[in-house]
Amino acid sequence: MRDFSSSHEWLSMNTATVRKQWELPQIIDACARRGIRAISPWRDQVAAAGLEATRRQLKEHGMQLSGYCRGGFYPAADKAGLAAALDDNRRAIDEAKTLDAACLVLVVGSLPGALQGKPAYTDIARARNEVRDGIAASLEYAREVGMPLAIEPLHPMQAAERACINTLEHALDLCDALDPGQTGMLGVAMDVYHCWWDPKLEQQIARAGDAKNTRLLAYHVCDWLTPTRDLLNDRGMMGDGVIELKKVRGWVEAAGFRGFAEVEIFSELDWWQRPGAEVLDTCIARHKSVV
Amino acid sequence: MRDFSSSHEWLSMNTATVRKQWELPQIIDACARRGIRAISPWRDQVAAAGLEATRRQLKEHGMQLSGYCRGGFYPAADKAGLAAALDDNRRAIDEAKTLDAACLVLVVGSLPGALQGKPAYTDIARARNEVRDGIAASLEYAREVGMPLAIEPLHPMQAAERACINTLEHALDLCDALDPGQTGMLGVAMDVYHCWWDPKLEQQIARAGDAKNTRLLAYHVCDWLTPTRDLLNDRGMMGDGVIELKKVRGWVEAAGFRGFAEVEIFSELDWWQRPGAEVLDTCIARHKSVV
Repeated sequence: MRDFSSSHEWLSMNTATVRKQWELPQIIDACARRGIRAISPWRDQVAAAGLEATRRQLKEHGMQLSGYCRGGFYPAADKAGLAAALDDNRRAIDEAKTLDAACLVLVVGSLPGALQGKPAYTDIARARNEVRDGIAASLEYAREVGMPLAIEPLHPMQAAERACINTLEHALDLCDALDPGQTGMLGVAMDVYHCWWDPKLEQQIARAGDAKNTRLLAYHVCDWLTPTRDLLNDRGMMGDGVIELKKVRGWVEAAGFRGFAEVEIFSELDWWQRPGAEVLDTCIARHKSVV
Repeated sequence: MRDFSSSHEWLSMNTATVRKQWELPQIIDACARRGIRAISPWRDQVAAAGLEATRRQLKEHGMQLSGYCRGGFYPAADKAGLAAALDDNRRAIDEAKTLDAACLVLVVGSLPGALQGKPAYTDIARARNEVRDGIAASLEYAREVGMPLAIEPLHPMQAAERACINTLEHALDLCDALDPGQTGMLGVAMDVYHCWWDPKLEQQIARAGDAKNTRLLAYHVCDWLTPTRDLLNDRGMMGDGVIELKKVRGWVEAAGFRGFAEVEIFSELDWWQRPGAEVLDTCIARHKSVV
């Protein structure tokens, strides 16, 4: 297991962590000034800053992308919606390639319309089928382009609205079905926030790979607070909650992951209210002490 | 699958559903007036009304208990705490026996102190071991007394504070380990609210038993709202959310369950604000139409 205690060379910042404080160009500069070598930006932030301008700014700083957020949201109420989702995922793959991301993260979607409070249907098995078919289609294009897709299992409390893949086991089952050859083009983005509770976590991480070939394409960290006051935007800074971060990273590295530990904190009540510099400095400090 | 459309003979009311409106004696009377044949009361409500008075009132109405809420909360920071939890579970078993409950529901607990925002430790594997040992100890006494114990897997969003058993699969694994003979003294209380999202739900329900012998000792219903505004107290009335209630009941009955469908709704913003009579009448109507 890598020693993070004296360096943050393996820290990546998911740019949602300071999205309320700064636009993307400011985030990139602030990270670069602190020697942060990687980020994972969101499509809306890139669109606002401009894709080509973002590419240039990243190149100037020699900054990598630990991932690109996000593709997915496959299920739809009708065929037109399903086709539109596939088109949108092609564009996301192209953007990720332009930015030379390590992977495109897939938040796969679930009951269409549920995010707006009006689910078009409630058959979650249907949503799961649409997700499987959608990923299969995206994977064809991703192979052509050479952009790995990383399925992110979301916490079961997001199962209706954002992702009907809610466990690492389910994500890996899908990887095995769609990419039996383990080509490296389909894997998982494992966020501890979504998976920490799972009694099969250690077992399933071990299943994900080894030093030679692993399904683990991205590793996201933050913490689970007690109490948690909101289902979406009350994530904690690493060390402020109950997740056994070092233990889990040990498992992840034993399963072959050698990439960045990407900090992704949605925090309406706390970290989004603080100065961006304080957030980044705290992430660096906690990366060394508890991640 | 039983036809509920013209009768509510298999409806049970978990008394938390109207706990803000009424004390237990009123709840029992209000249920009896509506021909509701079963309830599942909470220990604090029984303690307030008196155990013996409750027993008599239930008997007068010929009312059954589909379960008794609740035992569990085994993990503790030290040996004294672990012993105190076992003592408390003995008392809960005795109370359940006095009231002739179908089972004692176990909300097993998790990181001690987390419910108060100060976890004494964060090693969830330790909590799971303490839960296993605690249930094993309670089961010995439960066998003597003749009171089945029903492990209730809680939604993973409750994994830190209330229960470190979060899937039906995990609960059944524990049943198999502690009661390999399937004596009927250890099983599960399956609440759709906690389990609906699980991609292995159908498979694990099928594993739970058959018409001759089933681990399914209780079946709880409500609904999952989109959006869900609170992790604990924003459950929906059956039919107002996304859970496929009839489909799941079909699976549960195919696995041998023939007991009550117990309505358990914690709803700070909606149903706890309405008159108790309206809540009960709505439960009866929805039991017939969507459960």
